[in-house]
Amino acid sequence: MAETDGPDVLETARRAREASRALALATRQTKDAALHAMADALLAQAATVLAANAEDVARAEEAGTAAGIVDRLRLDDDRLAGMAQGLRDVAALPDPVGEVVRGGTLPNGLELRQLRVPFGVVGIIYEARPNVTADAAGLCLKSGNAVLLRGSSSARSSNAAVVAVLRDAVEGVGLPADVVQLVPGDTHDSVKALMRARGLVDVLVPRGGAGLIRSVVEESTVPVIETGVGNCHVYVDRAADLDKALAVVINAKTHRTSVCNAAETLLVHEDVAHQFLPVVIEALQERGVTIHGDDRFCEYDGVVPATDEDWAEEYLSLDLAAAVVGDLDEALEHVRRWSSQHSEAIVTEDQAAARRFVAEVDSAAVLVNASTRFTDGGEFGFGAEIGISTQKLHARGPMGLPELTSTKFVVTGDGHVR
Amino acid sequence: MAETDGPDVLETARRAREASRALALATRQTKDAALHAMADALLAQAATVLAANAEDVARAEEAGTAAGIVDRLRLDDDRLAGMAQGLRDVAALPDPVGEVVRGGTLPNGLELRQLRVPFGVVGIIYEARPNVTADAAGLCLKSGNAVLLRGSSSARSSNAAVVAVLRDAVEGVGLPADVVQLVPGDTHDSVKALMRARGLVDVLVPRGGAGLIRSVVEESTVPVIETGVGNCHVYVDRAADLDKALAVVINAKTHRTSVCNAAETLLVHEDVAHQFLPVVIEALQERGVTIHGDDRFCEYDGVVPATDEDWAEEYLSLDLAAAVVGDLDEALEHVRRWSSQHSEAIVTEDQAAARRFVAEVDSAAVLVNASTRFTDGGEFGFGAEIGISTQKLHARGPMGLPELTSTKFVVTGDGHVR
Repeated sequence: MAETDGPDVLETARRAREASRALALATRQTKDAALHAMADALLAQAATVLAANAEDVARAEEAGTAAGIVDRLRLDDDRLAGMAQGLRDVAALPDPVGEVVRGGTLPNGLELRQLRVPFGVVGIIYEARPNVTADAAGLCLKSGNAVLLRGSSSARSSNAAVVAVLRDAVEGVGLPADVVQLVPGDTHDSVKALMRARGLVDVLVPRGGAGLIRSVVEESTVPVIETGVGNCHVYVDRAADLDKALAVVINAKTHRTSVCNAAETLLVHEDVAHQFLPVVIEALQERGVTIHGDDRFCEYDGVVPATDEDWAEEYLSLDLAAAVVGDLDEALEHVRRWSSQHSEAIVTEDQAAARRFVAEVDSAAVLVNASTRFTDGGEFGFGAEIGISTQKLHARGPMGLPELTSTKFVVTGDGHVR
Repeated sequence: MAETDGPDVLETARRAREASRALALATRQTKDAALHAMADALLAQAATVLAANAEDVARAEEAGTAAGIVDRLRLDDDRLAGMAQGLRDVAALPDPVGEVVRGGTLPNGLELRQLRVPFGVVGIIYEARPNVTADAAGLCLKSGNAVLLRGSSSARSSNAAVVAVLRDAVEGVGLPADVVQLVPGDTHDSVKALMRARGLVDVLVPRGGAGLIRSVVEESTVPVIETGVGNCHVYVDRAADLDKALAVVINAKTHRTSVCNAAETLLVHEDVAHQFLPVVIEALQERGVTIHGDDRFCEYDGVVPATDEDWAEEYLSLDLAAAVVGDLDEALEHVRRWSSQHSEAIVTEDQAAARRFVAEVDSAAVLVNASTRFTDGGEFGFGAEIGISTQKLHARGPMGLPELTSTKFVVTGDGHVR
């Protein structure tokens, strides 16, 4: 397949590169008009999109796919309306392109400005949910980037239908349709070709499971922004307000389990263990949580023994690893060893403990007396997010529109020389 | 060698990671004390460093190395004083760590702050000049990063001596010596081990020729910041003030030829060609420049015919590719095709032409009526630079201290849950 998919992928990337030049120069007015046209078209063409989606759902059901995954694949009028509203929400956000990040006049009179500019071409590799197709297209368009969408083969009919609708809408406002394209082919070879398209694709954003992300990071020569694996910790300090601690732990674990900012490990200071453990274990078990605990937790009914695999695991389910630690140092050491550096929370009323936790935990987000579930572009007020970066280069944490841009220095003189 | 160097490199990286934790928490006071101690020690130990350097120089001369390269390798009292002063200059710069990049209170009362934090461990791969050893160590230390230095084998004695001196000085102020380390081994296998040390090394910055940079970009699984290849263009528009144009072209080409922000290609609008070509050709030839020209340039004595290789070439010498273009579009098309996206300049008095050039040229720096030589951290007022990034991710253009940091979100609440 490499011989057949590879050249097609490169040709698609070349068209994206060409189309990106017109998009980079488009005004906010034109881009917002495109986003509204995309939203309108999704609603107007709902029947076509839902029919294509029904094919994907039928194929998944025939293949015996788990009900949860089929549900994520399924579109209906409500979900289409949500996709359309998402595009309108992005239209309402400020345009990051052209923003002056810094600027001034140099001692020699040269005027220096650093401006936000689009990357050019962004590749998104993602799994299952066809709503990501519209979300990612909208965010890339608003930030002035042509997008190459590589969804999963299980959603291929839905993705093709959505992209066809979006392309028509984009063309309707006078922008090139090729600013939104599906990557042709659905084998790993087409992903491979995308990962080697350095010079044509400016950045790749893999969204999905740890395996997908690891393989993209390992194989890609195109720069990658890693997103989303969250082995998040909540540490209940000896100076914690235990009511707040209980609320935070329950929320972080059970509010939504399938997301990267859900808590996966609970650490409790031994000074409050005898008081907090019975309460938190009961509350979690009432909500269906299986606790994988250390020896101290295993003294309680229903707690199953944890292994090293539990400390490393991103469950994304009603499971929670749990341990008692001797002090803050031990908690920090545990986090350092096992965290995926996404989000970690401390619950404490002790200012010195909070200060140390914030300084020493090396994660995208560190939360004090707040649930890990707050690490989210929407919650942070960014309006929308393309993902949550767990790397340190370029963007870290929730990525909004500005994180989909680069910058350019503009230097203006009057015949200046050195 | 891979079996012998690889584990040593990983062990070195592990020590850097460990040491980086103490450095990340160090105050500006401690870091500046370390920088001054490093400067003092370089001067106090001058005899030892110069003796080590003499070994490198002797070895290079025996091997018949070109005089220019031997000169770049050579240290003397002046150059050592320059290295020491460079470290003191970095001490005088603001500390990027802890800077609040953005922040505010969310509608639910959560306090959100995005803070600058060190990357952790930075690897620098560089060629020839041993002064880079002190420069890079100083910039990384100030930005709170442990550094792994991989210089060229031709400078190995000098680099080892400089690093030994710096490590002693760092330890003298109470920081771990392992925040400054040389990468052991001087084969390509040790570079390879560094490039695969994902998780231990946070970012690699290759500084040197195009070949080195390409190989690091291709092979590294550690995130890379590409620096420095500059095929820079000067475009003289039909509305140019030709006196300014002449000054800019001469400065951009001849002020210093071995640097990435020197001009390598001159494009001239055909409306001013008959007037400008004889003047600019004479002025350049007087200064020893060989012009590799298109047919129009070749009508003049001494101009040699250009091939496609000339349009692509970063000469780093007194050579200049030159062509006449029909209009601004043709100039933009030439730049798009051949530029390395470092720095491009337009000389024009026409506001519309300047505006189009600035908008459509996709380079780290775009200059209007100013020499490409201004693309420089020092000139831009950043105080110091670790290199000039030609990539779009994370940092683009001259990289100062803030570009050697990542960020962390700190969220503070009072038991907040979703």
